[in-house]
Amino acid sequence: MEEKLAKKMEEKLEAPTLNYEAYFSEKALGMKASEIRELLKLVESSDIISLAGGLPNPETFPYDVLEEILPRVIAEHGAQALQYGTTKGYTPLRLEIAELLRRRYGIPISKVDIMITSGSQQGLDLIGRVFINPGDIVVVEAPTYLAALQSFGYYDPKFVQIPLDDEGMRVDLLEEKLRALKAEGKKVKLVYTIPTFQNPGGVTMSKERRKRLLELASEYDFIIIEDGPYNELRYRGEEIPPIKRWDAEGRVLYLGTFSKILAPGLRVAWVAGEPHFIRKLEIAKQGIDLCTNVLGQVIAAEFLKGGHLERHIPRIRAFYKPKLETMLEALDKYMPEGVRWTKPEGGMFVWMTLPEGIDTKAMFEKAVSKGVAYVPGEAFFADRSVKNTLRLNFTYVEDEKIVEGIRRLAEVIKEEMKA
Amino acid sequence: MEEKLAKKMEEKLEAPTLNYEAYFSEKALGMKASEIRELLKLVESSDIISLAGGLPNPETFPYDVLEEILPRVIAEHGAQALQYGTTKGYTPLRLEIAELLRRRYGIPISKVDIMITSGSQQGLDLIGRVFINPGDIVVVEAPTYLAALQSFGYYDPKFVQIPLDDEGMRVDLLEEKLRALKAEGKKVKLVYTIPTFQNPGGVTMSKERRKRLLELASEYDFIIIEDGPYNELRYRGEEIPPIKRWDAEGRVLYLGTFSKILAPGLRVAWVAGEPHFIRKLEIAKQGIDLCTNVLGQVIAAEFLKGGHLERHIPRIRAFYKPKLETMLEALDKYMPEGVRWTKPEGGMFVWMTLPEGIDTKAMFEKAVSKGVAYVPGEAFFADRSVKNTLRLNFTYVEDEKIVEGIRRLAEVIKEEMKA
Repeated sequence: MEEKLAKKMEEKLEAPTLNYEAYFSEKALGMKASEIRELLKLVESSDIISLAGGLPNPETFPYDVLEEILPRVIAEHGAQALQYGTTKGYTPLRLEIAELLRRRYGIPISKVDIMITSGSQQGLDLIGRVFINPGDIVVVEAPTYLAALQSFGYYDPKFVQIPLDDEGMRVDLLEEKLRALKAEGKKVKLVYTIPTFQNPGGVTMSKERRKRLLELASEYDFIIIEDGPYNELRYRGEEIPPIKRWDAEGRVLYLGTFSKILAPGLRVAWVAGEPHFIRKLEIAKQGIDLCTNVLGQVIAAEFLKGGHLERHIPRIRAFYKPKLETMLEALDKYMPEGVRWTKPEGGMFVWMTLPEGIDTKAMFEKAVSKGVAYVPGEAFFADRSVKNTLRLNFTYVEDEKIVEGIRRLAEVIKEEMKA
Repeated sequence: MEEKLAKKMEEKLEAPTLNYEAYFSEKALGMKASEIRELLKLVESSDIISLAGGLPNPETFPYDVLEEILPRVIAEHGAQALQYGTTKGYTPLRLEIAELLRRRYGIPISKVDIMITSGSQQGLDLIGRVFINPGDIVVVEAPTYLAALQSFGYYDPKFVQIPLDDEGMRVDLLEEKLRALKAEGKKVKLVYTIPTFQNPGGVTMSKERRKRLLELASEYDFIIIEDGPYNELRYRGEEIPPIKRWDAEGRVLYLGTFSKILAPGLRVAWVAGEPHFIRKLEIAKQGIDLCTNVLGQVIAAEFLKGGHLERHIPRIRAFYKPKLETMLEALDKYMPEGVRWTKPEGGMFVWMTLPEGIDTKAMFEKAVSKGVAYVPGEAFFADRSVKNTLRLNFTYVEDEKIVEGIRRLAEVIKEEMKA
């Protein structure tokens, strides 16, 4: 019944009474729905095994803690949690986050202010709004987070891509590029990186490269946007602190979020950075949504205050670790020679490179018809130049399905390699 | 302790290590913090009676209902409420809102789709993004909602102001303006109105004008942005349906919100409109915040489903009605000849016009020194041309303080009129 009604609402697009396009702004005319989202609609509600998702597993949500926290949030903090908040965010939460950054990562908070955002996605949009003039050069990793390209893209930058290897962004190639641009009298404004368990690459930037990137920022005078949503999702290997840890000059804006350590449905994230930058981001946020939902902020603050995060992170790690192992084992077992993939130490994704000449977007329909879905890699490149890659998610699907999904995918790839 | 730390964080703006301005976009360089917010910082945490606020009274929040709903939200809908949602919004909530619009206002939902937004403020920003090209003509009421000027203003429209009288926007003057613009070969793209209990004006647009505005929209081919946050806050007089009620051509985008009927801290609002328009707004929202916080959406859906809204609205009205009456009586008693104010039938604000020549911004400091604060009217005008008006809020302050606040304000005004 509900679905029927919902469907009816969707179908209303059919009977035009106005020339709708005539009213849209030029920028809006250029806005396209994310292809990926459209592709993924194909795989909903069927028995296709989808390794295409990007969602945390709902089994990792701390229902028990929330059942304990929520009544208190209303009883003790209701008048504040339900009211408008300040644009910058709920102060107790901002203080808890500052303390977390200091304690967990050694980030010296004496030079850092924190603003709460409605998900890190809003942080990216605000950064675009505050920093990017049309034509400004923004460096991104190749591949990079799709929706960052969408957020920044609205502000019409010129994207420059720097490839990844197993140690993250090729900072040596970045340096070459910076030198070449300088020779042309050009300058990079922002460098966007997801250094830890990169999305979609799965790789982690080494400590040496992190420090080198900071030196380059100082030498070539750019700002680093460090996106850290997966930092706590480490299943093996040694921790590497965020770049922000060594940021003496205040050149790093660090994006953190509760989406992968508490619950994405709260839409509570933050930007930590130099107070002058945060101040401008705050002014930009005023006209955009006044403030982030306060109920979610109070919940997040109580979650941190009560020490729940420290107890909850091991639960998340224990849940995802075997899934990553299951996927890596299945890949070893089923994939043919000539197919490469990353071996992440954490996060949510494995990145796969097929032999040159295979177009994973063209292959997508065949895969779906064989009962498995992935995300074609093309859209993760600013220039869409790379066709033979794909992204696999290991956090959402049951273990047996991961194995069966990889088996099916290997079949599809083998056929494609024969063709 | 907490305050001290918070203060320390605020003070960090003092020691620059970079030339921050050099990194900002041109648009960001032009962004200024809302003056009003800055002014209002002066009146925080003191014994000044502030009639300057714009907040619902926390005593109107349905704590009892939320205490009942919240455990169920986690127990029964947790996996959904805590997960990422679709950009368009939680379907059960969208359906409940559609039903509410049909039942309460007679809005025919067969031609309407609904998208959930992170507060109506986000709806305004999205509308700006999707509809406004630089230089497009956007009609606003004079005065109008300050943050709408901020949201739309980012997209560089040309604002045209149409004055209010006791029956809302002077639609006759709008018609003259439309005709004059047409003669110059110009066209209005959007007309933004808060027809019911206008902010800051307090006045309500008559049914005749609503219908006439729709005719003009058709004749002169523009889109109406109808902002309806206060619709349910009627304390006397007869209900008038939203303009959207008579919108046969799909020219009205209707903004509704839970901020004044449930709780603003949830940041859950909606845009209802022609499905092609909603589709484009949805695409624009993808890159901005992915989705509105789902927990708040599930709470709002449960609130509507359970019939709580119908039971709660009379409680809100019963709480605010005597406050409005108290303010109007105090104004009658204390204000000198030559001062005029609106007599709202609902909403949150009374709008006051002082004799020509008095500048309410200049008067503000004197008022604060006498222990009362208001919002100077200037910022509610797109062109800031009107200096002798101010806005009073009657929802937040205790009854005795309303009386005393108005008494103090009258003293200040009398002195000012003598000067």
